[in-house]
This record gives sequence, C-alpha cells and structure tokens, in this order.
Amino acid sequence: MKVGVLGSGEVGRRLAGGFVSRGHEVVIGTRTPKKPDLVQWAAGLKGKVQVGSFTDAARDGELVVLAIQGEAAVAAVELAGTPHFSGKVLIDVTNPLDFSKGMPPSLLFGTTDSLGERVQRAAPSAKVVKAFNTVGNGQMVDPHVKGQKHLELLIAGNDAAAKQRVTEIVKSFGWSGTLDVGGIEGARWLEAMVPLWVRAGSALNTFSHVWVVGRD
Amino acid sequence: MKVGVLGSGEVGRRLAGGFVSRGHEVVIGTRTPKKPDLVQWAAGLKGKVQVGSFTDAARDGELVVLAIQGEAAVAAVELAGTPHFSGKVLIDVTNPLDFSKGMPPSLLFGTTDSLGERVQRAAPSAKVVKAFNTVGNGQMVDPHVKGQKHLELLIAGNDAAAKQRVTEIVKSFGWSGTLDVGGIEGARWLEAMVPLWVRAGSALNTFSHVWVVGRD
Repeated sequence: MKVGVLGSGEVGRRLAGGFVSRGHEVVIGTRTPKKPDLVQWAAGLKGKVQVGSFTDAARDGELVVLAIQGEAAVAAVELAGTPHFSGKVLIDVTNPLDFSKGMPPSLLFGTTDSLGERVQRAAPSAKVVKAFNTVGNGQMVDPHVKGQKHLELLIAGNDAAAKQRVTEIVKSFGWSGTLDVGGIEGARWLEAMVPLWVRAGSALNTFSHVWVVGRD
Repeated sequence: MKVGVLGSGEVGRRLAGGFVSRGHEVVIGTRTPKKPDLVQWAAGLKGKVQVGSFTDAARDGELVVLAIQGEAAVAAVELAGTPHFSGKVLIDVTNPLDFSKGMPPSLLFGTTDSLGERVQRAAPSAKVVKAFNTVGNGQMVDPHVKGQKHLELLIAGNDAAAKQRVTEIVKSFGWSGTLDVGGIEGARWLEAMVPLWVRAGSALNTFSHVWVVGRD
C-alpha cells in the first residue's frame, strides 16, 4: 500500500519507518522537502520513501497519517487540499498541547472539543481515526513494555471499517490490538491523557512509558 | 489511626472497609446515618466503624477521605465545617462527572479547573491529595490485575509529606506505590482519565480495569 504521511518530524518519520518496515511505500509530506537531514533520512530507506508536499502525501496516499504539531494540524489538512482525503482513512496522531504557560502542557480546547473532531470537520469526507497520540514516538512501532505482552492502543473514530483497518495496521506494528473508545468525540479524552503522560514521564524520568489497560 | 470518611456510598464503604481491614477505626459521615443498609453494613464491621454526620467524620478523623458524588463534594466539605480539616491530610476521591447528556459522562469543569483544586480552595488549611479517583471501587483495596505485579496509583497534591502519608496507605492497601504527577492542579488530568475509563469499560464490558503505567 502507498501511505501518505503529513509531517516529517520525529513522529512522522517513526510511523513512516514503521510502514516501510512492514512492506509499504510512503510519501512523506512537508513544507521543507529539501531539508538536508530529511533527504538523508529518506535516502536511508532505499527508495521506499518519497519526500514531497502535503498535497503529494494526501493525494498519493491510499491511507493518510496526520503527524503535525497540534497548532498547525488543521492548517496542514487544508493546505494539502481536503478533496484529497475523500473516502480515505486518515490516522490523526496530533495533540492540541498548549505550551503557552511552559511545561508541563495543558490542552488548547479543553474537553468540549478536540483536534480529532476539528480534523474530521476540516475534512468531512475523510474517515478520521484518532490513534497513536497517547504514546511516545519510541513506542509507536514494536512497543516493548516490561512484563506486559498484552498492549492495546487506544483509538476513536466514527467509521467502523476505518477503525478495523487501523486495528490491522496497529497489530502489524506489534500491538496486541486496539481499544476502541467510540466516535471521534472520544478524541477529547485520548488527547487529555497526554498532559498526564507528560507529567507522569517527568515523575518517572522517562518518556518511553505506555498506558496499559490492566484487567483482573 | 482514626479515619473520617465523608460519604457512605460504594466508594466510601469500600475505602472504610480497607482502613478497617488494616487495623484502623473509621467514622463514616453521611446525611442519612439511620439508613438501614448502612447501619447493617457498619454492624458487620464489629465496632470498628461509627456512623455519624459529615461533621463527626471530619472532626474525629486524624485523616479524612472525601468520597462524595462530584456535584455535592464541595458542599459536603463546607457542611462538615472547614476548620475540622485544618492541618489534616484530606484524600479527595471525587470526580466532577457531568451526566447532563447521559452516558458516557463528560467533565463539569473541563481542564482549566478541577474538583481537587476546588476542594483545596474550600478547605485551604487541609492537605488535599487527589487519589483513588482513577480506579473503580472494586480495585481500590487489594488491586488485582492479571500478569501485573507493579501497580501504581496516580496521585497529586501540594504537600509532599501528605503525599508520602497517602503513599504509605496506598501501599498498605496492596499497591506497589504511587505515581505523583505534581501539585493539586494535576487533579485536572487525573479527573480527565475517568470519562475515558468509563468509555474503555463500556468497550471492554468490565469496570474492573485499571490504568497501568507500563515501562520498557
């Protein structure tokens, strides 16, 4: 499959690398396609990653990943051209973190709206699935948690088939599966885990920690 | 130690039972001390639990637990008489869940305020520690999660010594320890986990699930 990834930061590269490692091709979209370290990184992936614009990634991807800094996420979707997302699964990895008061962050939209919903409203014909936003980029692919084999990624979205497709991808990345918390408005609560994840990481002095849903 | 527990619902009874099982005495405070099932429940604890008013529980407890429905929590503190909390550790278990649109719930105060902070403002001379609000009452004491020995309870509060005291109690209840996410404003994020916990529980068809902080 050809996957479009909007965003060439650490998260975008990590997920792009995950797709390539599972046999897919990636078009990574960025505002700075000629940035030397990006060109070098893509060259290391042996022709499986093309670097292009947001529009290239959205248009050429059969499935698209949004891995943009929270404040710029909706603008990136609009800049890419919303018709390019039509009917496609759009994995929204973004977090609306508010760093205006420094660390640790708060949320830009509180819990009456979410970036997941804003992305869905910006691209209404896309099938937005919130996923991967609750984990650090080092644990997105091949997650490893001491003593824990059963790892579920928390997801939300309106389209059941799209969530099933994302669940298959998540499993191929080494997770046990997904835990589906409902429609895209569930993104409010998945995004609210992230300021807590940052605080817990500060307390633990690590950012490789993972929320696990334990059961009796 | 004598522990005051404000609230005689399931959560209050569960924690009161936990304290009694660890050798403490409890004064449980309620608006309805003559309620037959409450009297019967207390009688089953062999003189280790007295049933009284909110004031009795706050005044007689060396340490106090607030286990009241979110909407009534601050009023219960005020009704008990805020001077009775002076200098005491006050474990705030409450959640500001908004059921005005039915299930699943949202949060009454979003993420710019929290019930933990409101309780601290209502009783400024108390040492409020947010704790036990992120777990179901069936897992508060002797928590049991399949394949998981390392269980940390998420807490927040302004007073380090109070958090240390709560950590000792949490350990005596069978947890590995606590994960301290900072000052009482951290309650915003601990409370925001609960609407997600409810959604996850609906998906899993259980409410005995527990947030575990996995590490690599």
